[in-house]
Amino acid sequence: MPKLSQRVRDLRNSPIRALLERTQNPAITSFAGGLPAPDSFEDLVLPPAPTAMLQYGPTEGERDLRARLSEELEAIGLACPADRILVLSGSQQGIDLVAKLFVDAGTTVAIEAPAYLAALQVFGFFGAGFAPIDRADPAATFSAGQPALAYITPTFQNPTGHCWTAAERDALAAACDAGGVTLFEDDPYRDLVYDPCERRPVCARLKSASWIYQGSFSKTMAPGLRIGFLAASPDLFPHLVKLKQAADLHTNRISQWSVLQHLNDPNRAARLAGIVDRYRQKRDLFAASMSRHLTGLADWDVPSGGLFFWARLKGQVDTEALLEAALKRNVAFMPGDPFQPGAPPHAPAIRLNFSHASSEAADKGLAVIGELLAEAAKRAA
Amino acid sequence: MPKLSQRVRDLRNSPIRALLERTQNPAITSFAGGLPAPDSFEDLVLPPAPTAMLQYGPTEGERDLRARLSEELEAIGLACPADRILVLSGSQQGIDLVAKLFVDAGTTVAIEAPAYLAALQVFGFFGAGFAPIDRADPAATFSAGQPALAYITPTFQNPTGHCWTAAERDALAAACDAGGVTLFEDDPYRDLVYDPCERRPVCARLKSASWIYQGSFSKTMAPGLRIGFLAASPDLFPHLVKLKQAADLHTNRISQWSVLQHLNDPNRAARLAGIVDRYRQKRDLFAASMSRHLTGLADWDVPSGGLFFWARLKGQVDTEALLEAALKRNVAFMPGDPFQPGAPPHAPAIRLNFSHASSEAADKGLAVIGELLAEAAKRAA
Repeated sequence: MPKLSQRVRDLRNSPIRALLERTQNPAITSFAGGLPAPDSFEDLVLPPAPTAMLQYGPTEGERDLRARLSEELEAIGLACPADRILVLSGSQQGIDLVAKLFVDAGTTVAIEAPAYLAALQVFGFFGAGFAPIDRADPAATFSAGQPALAYITPTFQNPTGHCWTAAERDALAAACDAGGVTLFEDDPYRDLVYDPCERRPVCARLKSASWIYQGSFSKTMAPGLRIGFLAASPDLFPHLVKLKQAADLHTNRISQWSVLQHLNDPNRAARLAGIVDRYRQKRDLFAASMSRHLTGLADWDVPSGGLFFWARLKGQVDTEALLEAALKRNVAFMPGDPFQPGAPPHAPAIRLNFSHASSEAADKGLAVIGELLAEAAKRAA
Repeated sequence: MPKLSQRVRDLRNSPIRALLERTQNPAITSFAGGLPAPDSFEDLVLPPAPTAMLQYGPTEGERDLRARLSEELEAIGLACPADRILVLSGSQQGIDLVAKLFVDAGTTVAIEAPAYLAALQVFGFFGAGFAPIDRADPAATFSAGQPALAYITPTFQNPTGHCWTAAERDALAAACDAGGVTLFEDDPYRDLVYDPCERRPVCARLKSASWIYQGSFSKTMAPGLRIGFLAASPDLFPHLVKLKQAADLHTNRISQWSVLQHLNDPNRAARLAGIVDRYRQKRDLFAASMSRHLTGLADWDVPSGGLFFWARLKGQVDTEALLEAALKRNVAFMPGDPFQPGAPPHAPAIRLNFSHASSEAADKGLAVIGELLAEAAKRAA
């Protein structure tokens, strides 16, 4: 028997991953993943990169790309010089690096409930305990849990789609400043915005707390490139560079070059607007299908951006059993429990992705979920 | 003050990294890094990848690439099915994943002395202590240290260039089997072979011990692509996939596709033979320059492969002071101490890369090192 580390002994498979394997069958209508629609990148042209990009490169990332990302951050209200920007092999890597930087066994991480499940897994893997953030009173979380870190996805969150209001953002920033809590803001969905809403980063509102802000090109350019980036306060940045170096030396340079070309493409804004228009239309059709098939069976908010609806189910629905029944009828979704940082039981909920399936398939799939929920309600009555 | 994790508090910058920053000046002849010669990839053509590669992909890597890698491993004597091959974002990532899988604070890792310094850093970061492997009697290491893991680079090691003999390989494999010690074999240099020597993987000689074998395309194709891979015994593989998923979801698909095209290119063998011929010539010229300038000042073995000479200096040379003096004369090398797993003092040694500098520049650079060593010897006398 190999002598494995303590931390790996209860490492579990990602529920999403296990589910995605079962949804490879093209007959299945899957609301389970968070895949961009193929038509969002099928027009993407990646011109060949210069030969110099084939050599080892700097851990921090390509200089020109970092400068360009600094301008992008400036434009969204977050001032950060290029020399405090680290290019990542996708923003999942940023979570691994930040967990290494902050989390020992027993460290408290303040987090939304529900939260991005792959963040829960990584923080948990390094031994974190979780304190749920009360958006209405974040300071209360901090005084109780004394967290080392607060992790949030305030703009079109995965899984709920929620976008924090200006007041909520201000309150969290003030609480981080007052409590000396480092803020880790994960912002991969911000450009997928369908209705006007507050998006200025929470990190931009901090006065004294340490911070890490990260973004991704997986949702607006292409996930297969695995390019994300982080920006951080001066006290944290050098550590993150060393951790990145130990993790994979540096990010793929060919893709860094592709992303830079894309950022400099005069057609970029129009291309993004096209993606947003198509996703808004899908969201609206999805919302109409939800009203048609789930009214009376679930509650939900129509998200102002991002890729997900979060349906809070009425009654005591077993979401795992619901999923098994749905899979038999070729429909998949994500049960809500794995997104919860605390111990069960949780109020039953499911996450529904609306960006990937066609609107016709989505309507049929939601009809199946509605029928199964109605049957379950009848049995429970 | 942010509340950082215990493990990060003594995280140091890589000495190589700090040095590489100082050697950006093109006037400097650097023997410090391990960069492939630019002419080893300047002819590399990366045809555009299919659009499908832009979507999220499987954590394990592309199916066709994994199948091809399984054939490659079969050809070098290591039987491993495609479904136990994991494509990595460079082989540095494999070290991070294996460290997560095995190393808690206080875990013993058996390792060569000297060893690849970025492996020492990663294992040390997770809390490992080190037990040096005695190649002549590896079982002695294991009974003393009861290691969880043995990490080796048996073929043209970084930094020494040593290639383990068949007897040494067999002895280590037998010791791993007898002691139940997991073997982690890192093999990035195996294709850079200049003289006939034993290269069959140590993992292929195991009968019962768990194992991880990893390879890289950074030395024979291009480092900027950041593509490596690992193969592992059935008990370890599922854990490594989960750890990979938590680290960065999956490896860049565009580059995976490029590597697959390269592996299938009928011109590949001839291209590799050309690289090896050029490196062999560089090694021979470098060896001649070393004899010319360092005879009587250092001892060394001419490596049968890889990218490095390891020069053991005579007398009590301060290699850090030697480096500072050399940098003033625009020559850089790697002091040997950071490659040592144990506590100082260490016998003075320096690592010299011969693949990157031109042979003319290398001769002049080695002359400088010889002059500085001779001056130091005179002062000490």
